[in-house]
Amino acid sequence: MTSDNAPWMQQGELLDACLQVRRQTLALAEGLSAEDCLLQSMTEASPVKWHLAHTTWFFETFVLARAESGFQPWQADWLPLFNSYYLRLGQPFARDRRGLLSRPSLAEVLAWRDNVDARLQALLATPLAPEVQALLELGLHHEEQHQELILTDIKHHFWCNPLHPAYRPDLVPVEEEEGQPPAGMAWREFAGGLVAIGNGGDAGEPGFGFDNERPRHPAWLAPFALASRLVTNSEFLAFMLDGGYGRPELWLSDGWAECLRAGWHSPLYWFRHEERWWQFTLTGARPVRMDEPVCHVSHFEAAAYARWARARLPTEMEWEYVASLAAETAADAGEDGPTLFTGLHPAPPVAGESQFRGAVWQWTASAYLPYPGYREPAGAVGEYNGKFMSGQMVLRGASCVTPPRQWRCSFRNFFPPASRWQFTGIRLARDAVGTATAPLP
Amino acid sequence: MTSDNAPWMQQGELLDACLQVRRQTLALAEGLSAEDCLLQSMTEASPVKWHLAHTTWFFETFVLARAESGFQPWQADWLPLFNSYYLRLGQPFARDRRGLLSRPSLAEVLAWRDNVDARLQALLATPLAPEVQALLELGLHHEEQHQELILTDIKHHFWCNPLHPAYRPDLVPVEEEEGQPPAGMAWREFAGGLVAIGNGGDAGEPGFGFDNERPRHPAWLAPFALASRLVTNSEFLAFMLDGGYGRPELWLSDGWAECLRAGWHSPLYWFRHEERWWQFTLTGARPVRMDEPVCHVSHFEAAAYARWARARLPTEMEWEYVASLAAETAADAGEDGPTLFTGLHPAPPVAGESQFRGAVWQWTASAYLPYPGYREPAGAVGEYNGKFMSGQMVLRGASCVTPPRQWRCSFRNFFPPASRWQFTGIRLARDAVGTATAPLP
Amino acid sequence: MTSDNAPWMQQGELLDACLQVRRQTLALAEGLSAEDCLLQSMTEASPVKWHLAHTTWFFETFVLARAESGFQPWQADWLPLFNSYYLRLGQPFARDRRGLLSRPSLAEVLAWRDNVDARLQALLATPLAPEVQALLELGLHHEEQHQELILTDIKHHFWCNPLHPAYRPDLVPVEEEEGQPPAGMAWREFAGGLVAIGNGGDAGEPGFGFDNERPRHPAWLAPFALASRLVTNSEFLAFMLDGGYGRPELWLSDGWAECLRAGWHSPLYWFRHEERWWQFTLTGARPVRMDEPVCHVSHFEAAAYARWARARLPTEMEWEYVASLAAETAADAGEDGPTLFTGLHPAPPVAGESQFRGAVWQWTASAYLPYPGYREPAGAVGEYNGKFMSGQMVLRGASCVTPPRQWRCSFRNFFPPASRWQFTGIRLARDAVGTATAPLP
Amino acid sequence: MTSDNAPWMQQGELLDACLQVRRQTLALAEGLSAEDCLLQSMTEASPVKWHLAHTTWFFETFVLARAESGFQPWQADWLPLFNSYYLRLGQPFARDRRGLLSRPSLAEVLAWRDNVDARLQALLATPLAPEVQALLELGLHHEEQHQELILTDIKHHFWCNPLHPAYRPDLVPVEEEEGQPPAGMAWREFAGGLVAIGNGGDAGEPGFGFDNERPRHPAWLAPFALASRLVTNSEFLAFMLDGGYGRPELWLSDGWAECLRAGWHSPLYWFRHEERWWQFTLTGARPVRMDEPVCHVSHFEAAAYARWARARLPTEMEWEYVASLAAETAADAGEDGPTLFTGLHPAPPVAGESQFRGAVWQWTASAYLPYPGYREPAGAVGEYNGKFMSGQMVLRGASCVTPPRQWRCSFRNFFPPASRWQFTGIRLARDAVGTATAPLP
Repeated sequence: MTSDNAPWMQQGELLDACLQVRRQTLALAEGLSAEDCLLQSMTEASPVKWHLAHTTWFFETFVLARAESGFQPWQADWLPLFNSYYLRLGQPFARDRRGLLSRPSLAEVLAWRDNVDARLQALLATPLAPEVQALLELGLHHEEQHQELILTDIKHHFWCNPLHPAYRPDLVPVEEEEGQPPAGMAWREFAGGLVAIGNGGDAGEPGFGFDNERPRHPAWLAPFALASRLVTNSEFLAFMLDGGYGRPELWLSDGWAECLRAGWHSPLYWFRHEERWWQFTLTGARPVRMDEPVCHVSHFEAAAYARWARARLPTEMEWEYVASLAAETAADAGEDGPTLFTGLHPAPPVAGESQFRGAVWQWTASAYLPYPGYREPAGAVGEYNGKFMSGQMVLRGASCVTPPRQWRCSFRNFFPPASRWQFTGIRLARDAVGTATAPLP
Repeated sequence: MTSDNAPWMQQGELLDACLQVRRQTLALAEGLSAEDCLLQSMTEASPVKWHLAHTTWFFETFVLARAESGFQPWQADWLPLFNSYYLRLGQPFARDRRGLLSRPSLAEVLAWRDNVDARLQALLATPLAPEVQALLELGLHHEEQHQELILTDIKHHFWCNPLHPAYRPDLVPVEEEEGQPPAGMAWREFAGGLVAIGNGGDAGEPGFGFDNERPRHPAWLAPFALASRLVTNSEFLAFMLDGGYGRPELWLSDGWAECLRAGWHSPLYWFRHEERWWQFTLTGARPVRMDEPVCHVSHFEAAAYARWARARLPTEMEWEYVASLAAETAADAGEDGPTLFTGLHPAPPVAGESQFRGAVWQWTASAYLPYPGYREPAGAVGEYNGKFMSGQMVLRGASCVTPPRQWRCSFRNFFPPASRWQFTGIRLARDAVGTATAPLP
Repeated sequence: MTSDNAPWMQQGELLDACLQVRRQTLALAEGLSAEDCLLQSMTEASPVKWHLAHTTWFFETFVLARAESGFQPWQADWLPLFNSYYLRLGQPFARDRRGLLSRPSLAEVLAWRDNVDARLQALLATPLAPEVQALLELGLHHEEQHQELILTDIKHHFWCNPLHPAYRPDLVPVEEEEGQPPAGMAWREFAGGLVAIGNGGDAGEPGFGFDNERPRHPAWLAPFALASRLVTNSEFLAFMLDGGYGRPELWLSDGWAECLRAGWHSPLYWFRHEERWWQFTLTGARPVRMDEPVCHVSHFEAAAYARWARARLPTEMEWEYVASLAAETAADAGEDGPTLFTGLHPAPPVAGESQFRGAVWQWTASAYLPYPGYREPAGAVGEYNGKFMSGQMVLRGASCVTPPRQWRCSFRNFFPPASRWQFTGIRLARDAVGTATAPLP
Repeated sequence: MTSDNAPWMQQGELLDACLQVRRQTLALAEGLSAEDCLLQSMTEASPVKWHLAHTTWFFETFVLARAESGFQPWQADWLPLFNSYYLRLGQPFARDRRGLLSRPSLAEVLAWRDNVDARLQALLATPLAPEVQALLELGLHHEEQHQELILTDIKHHFWCNPLHPAYRPDLVPVEEEEGQPPAGMAWREFAGGLVAIGNGGDAGEPGFGFDNERPRHPAWLAPFALASRLVTNSEFLAFMLDGGYGRPELWLSDGWAECLRAGWHSPLYWFRHEERWWQFTLTGARPVRMDEPVCHVSHFEAAAYARWARARLPTEMEWEYVASLAAETAADAGEDGPTLFTGLHPAPPVAGESQFRGAVWQWTASAYLPYPGYREPAGAVGEYNGKFMSGQMVLRGASCVTPPRQWRCSFRNFFPPASRWQFTGIRLARDAVGTATAPLP
């Protein structure tokens, strides 16, 4: 988020985009009952209704409160309920108890959404200060982030029901074609050196960027090689069959402790059924497709796999550098651009696809820390990203449930290393073979 | 439950009663949304929808499966979800995750209820074996027990919402009249000796009784005195003002540890608001009425209060003995009998009322253990009561949310000593003053 | 403890006994290093040094402080360290951190013991008030109780060391003789009726008794049968081989939860070695003797075993009643009386021995609750027993590590139902067969 | 550790150094009793005896096993007890239960030490393979690391005893002189650019280095400023008085959660006494000296302080770069070099001292991650550092209890961000003011 930058769209265009995104959010909840929308299966995964309310709270609190004269919140006593973690705005309701909020009802939350949308629409007539426009733009991106969370969270909620309900039972997955494995993984080598990393500045990506992607800055990369595609279920199964979940020498110390504690023996959402591996997806349970990218693994599993494969995870700088090159050559973008949430599951790569985006988030070897020169925005919105720069690992890319507007090389996603409920997978890297280390300065 | 006894009603009468009780259960859920019915605020308090389903499961599993030829369950994969704790029927779904069952939906559960009710109705035409009739009767009483749980549980669920929704906002509590305290508590002395305790047999209460109330058996009571009424909020507040929650010498050792751990400083549902004590009730939050019986205290608090008051809690035998005498003199029953769930909150005593029933469950000094000669019923239904005879204390009486059919002197309720979300209060007892101990045999 | 009663010994005799008992306590620590004496393997099991200090604290605090003019504690800042749980004397040091007290050193604690012993000796010259004499007598019994705890606790401490050190490696256990199983268990029937239970009064046991054994009072027993001896390892192994640890229908609900949580699959201190069962004892690890009484089982295991054996545990009243009869016939006492701590392990029964004492503590079906008319002593010493009357089960008898002075029929030991580190075993009971229940009063 | 490098000393010199270091280790335990040496106050802090044994295990396992023909371990069944975390050598004894190992006794462990020392001495006569020499050198540095842990751990153990024993009561701390505050902190600016980081290579520090300090590699630094000295107690107290422990906006999100959970309100070892702040030190409890560097703060507290001071923590690269410059100018080294463990507490800076070493470890803003090109050593010793590269923060410098041989600019210490029992303090950094960011590549 960049409160000090002008937004990247005109005010009218921006408001239209906001309202369109908010309609898409509603569409995500369409097939769900009020009961479904109340589920909270763990602290980290919020109810869908809460997401619907929180994003509305965000626009009301950060935009309307600044833009409307005589501003009144729709319902003052709801505010702490839907404040996620902005302590400068007061004590939020306990995160692990969001599933206890049957009131306000889903209908009441939807009425609030309508009201806020109407008030946003009404802002078209008033020129907004640049910092309010910036907050409006932030709200748009914030809402898209919660679209992804709605999907990742409902998947986990439903998984906890032994009936394994499908979020979209109408979507029929493509059958795996026998004998069509994805192309072998190739190693692409890069010489490294001084490269520019991050969003913004004279050479960066145009457009919006969160505060944590900035400033664009130099970084030195040693020569390295990056895998041409993601690790597949087939490859990950080889790790499992080789005893990967039982060999501590492959694991980080904390990872091994977590593996034992949690009893991991496969990716999340995998289960044995009729003597084969099945997986639970947003379209229901079905056999694991071997050519798909492995998904729902933690950083710890990704690191153990990489070690088993005699490789490592890329740093976020390595990832961004190569992804930027790929983006410039446009090889990865489909003609018509990406479609929103078509498959709800990572698809096998098509020939030559490098899978930087649209399949899974890719764990990096980098801890989530501020860039040199990082400044968090002033005010409560400064809590958006900065205070979480501890104990988490950076993920890069974008998944099959990430809205395409968020698909940019500089985007820094972050989760604790034991997290598995996001759509997270593995891309391998390694130090360059036969390349002399660059001379030291 | 007494599967070996003939039921206390004719089959037709029994089926009619069952169907009537099941209609009452539905009525309890009437003002609640599907969202409300999914709430689960703690492991011990189940969602209302789960209660609606579990009682249906009970009739289907224990009655219809025996009574119907060609029996098929309505939905086989729902069965483990709504099995509470009958391990002989398979592994039940985790008790602490019942709030994650958005599916089956409330509507689907209600359809199942309708179906089971219709199948019960259809049994009218077929003579049932005595043991099936006994299970039918058990189902009736089981359903009534869950009616009470629906009310105690929804109270706790709603309490966890900072908006403090009222279950029955339409019910307006009576204002406290100034200057009308309840009559002072009197001590009634009893000589004790050999008395008969328990349900059934030649001298017991006629009618239904659970297995844990049986067999009726002799017990020896030392001379004792019992309080003429329950402890009031006013009296309990005196304990609080005298530092009762901060004086370990008043508490049982485990109670003091729990008091510190949980941070108790008042009964559950009490809170400070505008410099006075308020309490949350099923009809909403309102100031504490001083003349009402204190409610929602644990056994530990009850025991500490009793000690502070230089008294003790009665044993369950003492309680039952005196309550039986009171029942015989009929002093306590209203002319028209009790009404179902009128106030949803314990009322102050009317003049001369001894409050054995209809206000709060009364903690006793007795651990929940089998009576001499206790036999649990054969089969899975044997898990109904017997396996819980460990770590719990007996409560006697019946509360303002107990269906009147359960109001009997021999009824043994039981909860862990730290429990507070049931409608639980305090009646004092003490050893008889100036009475010589009966000569030893 | 009975502070209102005259002690059962003359003052001089009493002081001599105290000093003798305190010498025995020291003897128990003789083979242990200062390091051994600091071990604390769990909250419930204190270091030997702490026991040595606490019993000294007890005499200094409860006796010397009242008996000495110009009393000064040996070391004022040690007092909270060795106060166990007497909250009326101030906040004791955290129970789970007693193993962190390397200071005062063992040598310093022993010097304190010497000092207190000398001061007790000096009391011979002064007539003590009866209540001080009563506290002196209490101190004697208290010290003997801690003698038993020293042995049970060091056993657990050493068990946690993979080297499995023996407390008394010099003691060589008797080899099991092949083909010599203990006599079959017989059922002895009793008609029950009104009996006297408890210590004291005109018909009770003469001599000392703790407050919790009093007052002696009438109780009504239904006809019952009691096993002629304890359950053996051989019998318990049959339960294990029949899947006893995996069949929830045999267990109390809380017991089954604990069994799963703790992963029980045999008594404590049993382990598999070279394809047979071994057990760790105070004299080292050795194969399980099949003819010994099973030991180190929890109440939950005892209750599950009893159910499997189609029996039940006796109530404490049943146990006391029968043990009293046995004591009167003197069948159980050896000619020269019991010897202190000879085997440090429960021995197989000799022919005809009923094993009420000297082998293991015997779980009863009774919760630890106050007797009718119970009064706890005044002052801090009132915390000795009374405040623990919650959440624990009564054990009767006396074990192979119980000082013989504590062997009395009315003694009430008590531990939580999941405890296993005491020398605890099983005696079965059942309702009388073919006996009509006594007519109700 | 660099098993592929020749050690930096000749074999004879190396063995002498090892034996000298091992004598110093013994000297550290001299004033402690066997009881003191058994203390374990938390999982992370091991008993002194365990350190004495573990370092001996290390030499026996990694050096003697390779160097001795016909090698036999001193005591085979002790090996798992003193294996810290080398899973490739088998399952180590539980880390949190090291305080339960009264056996082997301290005397037995010392005898083992003597034996291993003698066998090391005997190696003088045999030429050792380079990789064994490298392991010998690693053992020397490993033993010095445990010297520091002995001091940090015994401090924590003693702190848990309410008597607050002093490790070295003979050492009398210098009194604080009134009116002599340390010189004000100055900001030193650095232009940054491409710098070399890490140990080894052509431009690195000569001598030993652990694997995690290697390889030496280029890194790009943005312009920055570094504080001329450490943060003092006086300065930290200002943060406390300004409500620093109660203002969530200053804290990382995880830090604030930990602050609430653990109830932090001052550095570890501080306590209120007679209306001023005292602190517990290895020489006993005494008032906090205001001119000393603040010590025993977590990364979370350091980060909160830095934010409050409108600064930030330095990255490990920034720290190393400046410390290297300082080392080259030799301004920081005393004439005779540092003395071992003189004060056992961080001293106030002398005029102009930059305090890079010898006072406290300094939290950096860098997560503990592998350097580009990092390779862990082959075999079990590869578990020394690499598997811990997750969830920890890098600390730089060296503390008052760090052996001087470990004082090198490239040393990377690492602890979880909530750790406080090490001698850890704060040096501030900030982005350069008025310096344009270097042009992007």
